[in-house]
Amino acid sequence: MKNGTLYLIPSNLSDPFSPTQILPSGVIATASSLNHYVAENAKTARAFLKTLGVKRPILEISILELNNQTREGDLAEMLAPLLAGQNVGLVSEAGAPGVADPGALIVALAHQHGIAVVPLVGPSSILLGLMASGLNGQTFAFHGYLPQDKTARVNAIVELELESRRRNMTQLFIETPYRNQAMYADLLLTLAPSTRLCIARDLTGNREHVQTKCVSAWRIQTLAMERLPTLFLFLARAAERGPPSQKRLR
Amino acid sequence: MKNGTLYLIPSNLSDPFSPTQILPSGVIATASSLNHYVAENAKTARAFLKTLGVKRPILEISILELNNQTREGDLAEMLAPLLAGQNVGLVSEAGAPGVADPGALIVALAHQHGIAVVPLVGPSSILLGLMASGLNGQTFAFHGYLPQDKTARVNAIVELELESRRRNMTQLFIETPYRNQAMYADLLLTLAPSTRLCIARDLTGNREHVQTKCVSAWRIQTLAMERLPTLFLFLARAAERGPPSQKRLR
Repeated sequence: MKNGTLYLIPSNLSDPFSPTQILPSGVIATASSLNHYVAENAKTARAFLKTLGVKRPILEISILELNNQTREGDLAEMLAPLLAGQNVGLVSEAGAPGVADPGALIVALAHQHGIAVVPLVGPSSILLGLMASGLNGQTFAFHGYLPQDKTARVNAIVELELESRRRNMTQLFIETPYRNQAMYADLLLTLAPSTRLCIARDLTGNREHVQTKCVSAWRIQTLAMERLPTLFLFLARAAERGPPSQKRLR
Repeated sequence: MKNGTLYLIPSNLSDPFSPTQILPSGVIATASSLNHYVAENAKTARAFLKTLGVKRPILEISILELNNQTREGDLAEMLAPLLAGQNVGLVSEAGAPGVADPGALIVALAHQHGIAVVPLVGPSSILLGLMASGLNGQTFAFHGYLPQDKTARVNAIVELELESRRRNMTQLFIETPYRNQAMYADLLLTLAPSTRLCIARDLTGNREHVQTKCVSAWRIQTLAMERLPTLFLFLARAAERGPPSQKRLR
């Protein structure tokens, strides 16, 4: 029998959301047609499918959870429909499945079994933030969360800035909303005045706001960081390179 | 007067394309409504807008080019409609504007002038490839093109693999289609047998194919790399960490 296909379906970054703003209609149609899902959280996945406009009773759709509680033995059950010729959808809690979430595990397993993996277009805060930052999109790195401990976090920022300067690399990371203010304070204290810092908040949401400034400019304004999903990005300026615009254009 | 908004509109990765597979209908509506565009290539941008279903005569839409030939003095002209309260769209040759293209320049300038920048959802080969690879999406870096010179390229691969092992970091890069075969050969020769290598070809296109295997498994098959847009991704295995699935699930 021919294997099914594993479809990777990005989900909403903010709530409430309008499906026609975040997913192509062809992707909504594919997502609505599937009877098997793997999701980080079944309840959120059901709400997502309902908002997409799935007409069938949502409880008839099988949704298996893949998260930090999942045991390795459970993965076989997730793979079973694929091996039996059924298509399966993978959704994350927010954004692209397999990027900064545990979904990559089932994707890796699908490859091991020769199952076709098809990534579908949808929202990703990492990509949207990078686009909107105006920072270097030719070389960049995403680091997930930085350490929670203050000293370790400041050290991490120092190292990332050195690397950014050396490689002309945009550095991206996230923080849990209630720590945004502390992260912002540490960044302003630690980064060089000429480093460009972008704060990208609530991407695709009602309170979306993306702003890039030099650290020196951020320092002279008081920014109340709200408890919204936030992506931080920065790019250090290499003194010997001159302004990036001159560099790039000539 | 209130400034206009700079909308960042991802474009098709492959040709021909179906708009309903790659862009949300709300994004198609926004793209169709704009009278001012900045694009890497005006001709490609016109073809893109036509396929989206723009009904007005496309030649009535102003499209200014931003590419390696653009001089710094030309940027003011691109900014002018925004400062006059008009919205402007930014499109790339393929995929997300500002990511691996010169569009970031105008985005940076918009930030300097306090102009709102709104990134819209659409296709990006980097993100689609990362999702579909099953490799680590918690820590990853994109490097654009590796050096063309063989020795320099092999050295770059060696260094990226060392870094991948040390930081558990997925490494991503692209190659021009006619050099795909040489890149593939260099990767198989250089990477460790246990390193997982993903080859993501023609994403969103008719010949899309994404496959991840250990280098040892790639070596025992002959792969004719076709001259299709290809993203390469790899993740080195750290011997002392054990298989990533055990690590992640515990």
